[in-house]
Amino acid sequence: MKHAVVIVGGSAGGVQAAICTQKHHGIDDVLVIRQEDTVMVPCGIPYIYGTLRAVDKNVMPDKLLGAAKLKIGEVTAINREAKTVSLSSGEEIGYDKLVLATGSQPVQPPIPGMDKENVYAVRKEPEYLHRLYMAMDTAEHIVVIGGGFIGVEFADECRKRGHEVAIVEILDHCLELVCPKDLCVRAEDVLKASGVKVFTGNALKSIGGNDRAEYVTLNDGQQIKCDMVIVGIGVSPNNKLAAQAGLEIGPTGGIKVDEFQRTGDSNVFAVGDCAEKYSFYNGEPVPIRLASVATREAKIAAANLFSPRWRNVGTIGVFSTVVGDMAIAMAGLSDIQATKRGYDVVIGEAEAVSKHPGTMPDAKPMRVKLCFDRRSGKLLGGCACCTMSVGEVGNLIAAAIVNNMTIEQVALFPMGTHPWLTASPLAYQLTDAASNALHKVIKSS
Amino acid sequence: MKHAVVIVGGSAGGVQAAICTQKHHGIDDVLVIRQEDTVMVPCGIPYIYGTLRAVDKNVMPDKLLGAAKLKIGEVTAINREAKTVSLSSGEEIGYDKLVLATGSQPVQPPIPGMDKENVYAVRKEPEYLHRLYMAMDTAEHIVVIGGGFIGVEFADECRKRGHEVAIVEILDHCLELVCPKDLCVRAEDVLKASGVKVFTGNALKSIGGNDRAEYVTLNDGQQIKCDMVIVGIGVSPNNKLAAQAGLEIGPTGGIKVDEFQRTGDSNVFAVGDCAEKYSFYNGEPVPIRLASVATREAKIAAANLFSPRWRNVGTIGVFSTVVGDMAIAMAGLSDIQATKRGYDVVIGEAEAVSKHPGTMPDAKPMRVKLCFDRRSGKLLGGCACCTMSVGEVGNLIAAAIVNNMTIEQVALFPMGTHPWLTASPLAYQLTDAASNALHKVIKSS
Repeated sequence: MKHAVVIVGGSAGGVQAAICTQKHHGIDDVLVIRQEDTVMVPCGIPYIYGTLRAVDKNVMPDKLLGAAKLKIGEVTAINREAKTVSLSSGEEIGYDKLVLATGSQPVQPPIPGMDKENVYAVRKEPEYLHRLYMAMDTAEHIVVIGGGFIGVEFADECRKRGHEVAIVEILDHCLELVCPKDLCVRAEDVLKASGVKVFTGNALKSIGGNDRAEYVTLNDGQQIKCDMVIVGIGVSPNNKLAAQAGLEIGPTGGIKVDEFQRTGDSNVFAVGDCAEKYSFYNGEPVPIRLASVATREAKIAAANLFSPRWRNVGTIGVFSTVVGDMAIAMAGLSDIQATKRGYDVVIGEAEAVSKHPGTMPDAKPMRVKLCFDRRSGKLLGGCACCTMSVGEVGNLIAAAIVNNMTIEQVALFPMGTHPWLTASPLAYQLTDAASNALHKVIKSS
Repeated sequence: MKHAVVIVGGSAGGVQAAICTQKHHGIDDVLVIRQEDTVMVPCGIPYIYGTLRAVDKNVMPDKLLGAAKLKIGEVTAINREAKTVSLSSGEEIGYDKLVLATGSQPVQPPIPGMDKENVYAVRKEPEYLHRLYMAMDTAEHIVVIGGGFIGVEFADECRKRGHEVAIVEILDHCLELVCPKDLCVRAEDVLKASGVKVFTGNALKSIGGNDRAEYVTLNDGQQIKCDMVIVGIGVSPNNKLAAQAGLEIGPTGGIKVDEFQRTGDSNVFAVGDCAEKYSFYNGEPVPIRLASVATREAKIAAANLFSPRWRNVGTIGVFSTVVGDMAIAMAGLSDIQATKRGYDVVIGEAEAVSKHPGTMPDAKPMRVKLCFDRRSGKLLGGCACCTMSVGEVGNLIAAAIVNNMTIEQVALFPMGTHPWLTASPLAYQLTDAASNALHKVIKSS
């Protein structure tokens, strides 16, 4: 059996590759091979537990695949010379072009007690997630290890479900890897106010108890009682299949790809969490693994299958989350990341009510913080909080970054405004944040 | 008495010019002269009537002016040689630089009955708006003339207040000047479902009754009973002061300005509704009069007061509104406008639920429509409806337009997504609309 295009992996990257291959090339001889009967919406997984209250409310519909064929099975080897993949069933399937979208798996730290039965990783298999869901019914005290987006979202959802929740983060603050410190503190305050206990600057030393986890011990000796532990400290790329086939692996563990998403073998592409990513700013490998990044890479790979057409000019991280009723979005580099990279950073901030006049119903403060490079004037990154429109404001910031907009251009951005939908035209946060950065530059020059 | 900078007009443009002059140049010898004791938030005016329920909830705070001085008075003449302005009080005030932000006034069509006492224009004076507010208490049947944004918002607000409302639009559809037809129809459907009677493709012929308006007669002879008429059919620039001073007036009635917002006199600038605007696309004069455009021009003028620094690269319209609970945003050219200008237009559309998975609470359909130039691939315009985040999506579309992004670049835009805040990364409307346009192009080539 042979197919024009074979895609290994059926999550966001694999599905997008299947959609775009059909649309772009008019080809429907596309086979998607995945291990799971049912695929979860990856970013929806935390929301199963407090908001959706059912694993089957978080299913990615197979109809997205269109005319592509679907095979449930495990690919165990790639034979690049014969242009075939081997399945654990013994089956061999030929390809003209192969797209690897094998994803990632949770990092499991080598800590005593991690193997206890009520210790859960944030995996993507529905059966596993359902077991976690059922187990939660009898858990009173839940400890979440890892204060990144996934950890914070799990803590928030478990709290909504009525559990006693503690969250443990090794860095000084939750969300510190991507958010500026003031936002991290605000998010922690929201968690604390809702009853979540927040332990930061403190690592997990061990998980204690008999067969089951009964408490966790932190590096400073503190013990936290628990009857469930959820570990969400990051992911590592599923690169084994590619490595065994002799494809090069990059420094962050992703399959090395060129600017057209091609691996070292021009018939084999890699997209999503399993693929290495390169910074939009300077091309260095960056460990940004998000479903939105995966779908973008899949669009690029699909367009380039038969000849190089679209270039991946590099990855910027665009993250958003909601803690309690506080939404946060981040795009590009934080001030700390930018300073570390050697930029001479200028920060501009602006806050205004989200509707205008401020007497409109449900008007709330909304804040934008932007980070520019002083020399070139270019926007490097920015964040917005705390209203529900900041998801799209983060995307607006991303648009300004990828178009290399300067302080002056952002300050003069021709935004539209409306009483129900945005701040006033005299106080629009994005343009005002840029103006404020500009006035700092003018004063200091 | 003489000031470094004198600003005539105290609405959005004047206030922004006062703010930016101080911030940009460190000058606080700025005088704002305006006629009104109190200034209304211009876009908030319709919302006084159903949402805010008080004129004084829609006040623009004077503290925005910072250290600038404020004089309430009417400027009656500009003496450009002496560099002074004359006030109706007889006072003469000198300036080094003068910024005209004299705004606009409602267009009053020459129709029989327009002078009846219960016929109101959408003026900006608080006393007038308060009289309208009080008069509404005894009005049962209200007819709104004009189905643009202001008319539609007034109709919607009057309906919220419990009145019987009819709206009359001369074009085939409400909002037709800026929105694509399908959106116009959806907005009309929302109005109709809420009980507003919508008369389109039909002009006002006369207003009948004795002293008071008792009915309006349309061109086709239909009569609509009323005890109040609100006329919102557009504005005309307040250019008289400038014209009398010998400054040139442009074809849409605005004071002619160069790319630095300078009038023919390099000491006199004009911003906002009173100033002529030039299209971002081809530089032709365009009648786009919005508070957000005014503030942008004011920022540019303020920067350029003492030497040309910032160029106004042209105006794009970015409009948004809310009808019932349906929000709409538009940026740039509609397909009709683009076709009229001679572009070979390619349309791409995409609809998806506003949250993901679609089972998240309050997930609603959100739709994006984009209009590209086939030859250059550039984005010309776009619109989004119907969730409350579309205000910022309209701004995201605007960012793509002003950065000359192409179909491919928009299709590959690195958006961020989140279950609570956006569609799924597999169905993000902006990128999918561009992909769909691209696939049309590929198929037809």
